Amino acid sequence: MYKIVFMRHGESTWNLENRFTGWTDVDLTDKGVREARDAGRVLKEAGFSFDLTYTSVLKRAIRTLWLALDEMDMMWLPVKHDWRLNERHYGALQGLDKGETAAKYGDAQVLVWRRSYDTAPPALAGDDPRASFGDPRYAGLDQGSIPLTECLKDTVARVMPAWDEEIAPAIRAGKRILISAHGNSLRAVIKMLDGISDEDIVGLNIPNGQPLVYELDADLKPIRHYYLGDQEAIAAAVSAVANQGKAK
Amino acid sequence: MYKIVFMRHGESTWNLENRFTGWTDVDLTDKGVREARDAGRVLKEAGFSFDLTYTSVLKRAIRTLWLALDEMDMMWLPVKHDWRLNERHYGALQGLDKGETAAKYGDAQVLVWRRSYDTAPPALAGDDPRASFGDPRYAGLDQGSIPLTECLKDTVARVMPAWDEEIAPAIRAGKRILISAHGNSLRAVIKMLDGISDEDIVGLNIPNGQPLVYELDADLKPIRHYYLGDQEAIAAAVSAVANQGKAK
Repeated sequence: MYKIVFMRHGESTWNLENRFTGWTDVDLTDKGVREARDAGRVLKEAGFSFDLTYTSVLKRAIRTLWLALDEMDMMWLPVKHDWRLNERHYGALQGLDKGETAAKYGDAQVLVWRRSYDTAPPALAGDDPRASFGDPRYAGLDQGSIPLTECLKDTVARVMPAWDEEIAPAIRAGKRILISAHGNSLRAVIKMLDGISDEDIVGLNIPNGQPLVYELDADLKPIRHYYLGDQEAIAAAVSAVANQGKAK
Repeated sequence: MYKIVFMRHGESTWNLENRFTGWTDVDLTDKGVREARDAGRVLKEAGFSFDLTYTSVLKRAIRTLWLALDEMDMMWLPVKHDWRLNERHYGALQGLDKGETAAKYGDAQVLVWRRSYDTAPPALAGDDPRASFGDPRYAGLDQGSIPLTECLKDTVARVMPAWDEEIAPAIRAGKRILISAHGNSLRAVIKMLDGISDEDIVGLNIPNGQPLVYELDADLKPIRHYYLGDQEAIAAAVSAVANQGKAK
């Protein structure tokens, strides 16, 4: 049996400001820093150890990983950065306030943009300063694969090769893996692992900074999964994520 | 022409306490944290950019790198950990106060242990709790290659394969590299690059947290080298390193 641990990054400044973030490289809040350290402490207290870690190229996930590794006294663990673990690109919504967007377009439209499987938000213009062309962290990519918007289906399509080509072979090789990533890149992985339908994935919410353990069989099929830590606090955090897109 | 930048970690708690550190995994002091951030700021202001970074498996070098990358807003850069970039192993001196050791054995003996090229300090016993057997970061190694003491010649012998097999090919492939490591692993690299004799290497001192730029020709032979930043402060820091081993 294999185990893999997923963490969504701690609270970011734009989680706090209730803005659509996507590929915008915002940092953690003080609360997010505490959440990341707590995640590391919880993992350490539960006796977890790792051989390899993965994260995105966005600092909120990287800092969450660094802080957790620091708490675990495992700063020396290999860290692999993969842009394919980035958050879903939120297109022209990046930077907009979620509540204002909901007030303008209605809760239903925002819920569609946030959670429908195959409807992407309006795309950024290619010359929008928010677009990622010219950013050195994406310089090695075919520029055509840099998104200007994504629905979750698009995110799944770029996360899955990272899983199939990198992460799954490492698990099979016996590596104990910790992944620090984002709400939607983790939803993409979990959708695939648990075979969740395009409809039901809308209802899956992942709280910030809570280690989520998946136990997998020899074929990497999930046997069970559970969050580590204070279960009441986790339930409250899951519910808070579900309510983020609503107008006040 | 190629450029590579070396950094010795910021001040560690045992630098401050004037203890022999070696492979002991001590952290940075507050001053060391400031030095690391300053190094990142100096690199950023000088317009340096990197493709790849290397560090040891010891947290004082890793944290120095993390803090510098944070200041440069390049937390997403690949980081390769290599135990061969670790500090020289200080054998049975690890944990001892440098001044007390000098008072007991004499400045001359301590200078021999600190700086002679081929005289190692007394070895740790294999069952000494300070030995690194059983430490998960060295679990992948042939246990016979885990040192119990090292002279600089030994350090050179294990640093050079890391240079030849990993770092030099990456430089030739055009990667701009930042290395965060230790006084003696960096002295080993510089001895080789500059062809410094076994005698003259004794006089080479590398200050904490000062980016050291080497410009290399197509054969990776040094054209010139220089520290970035405040040159007077750097001269004072070099001189302070030279005086560390002396009794008060």
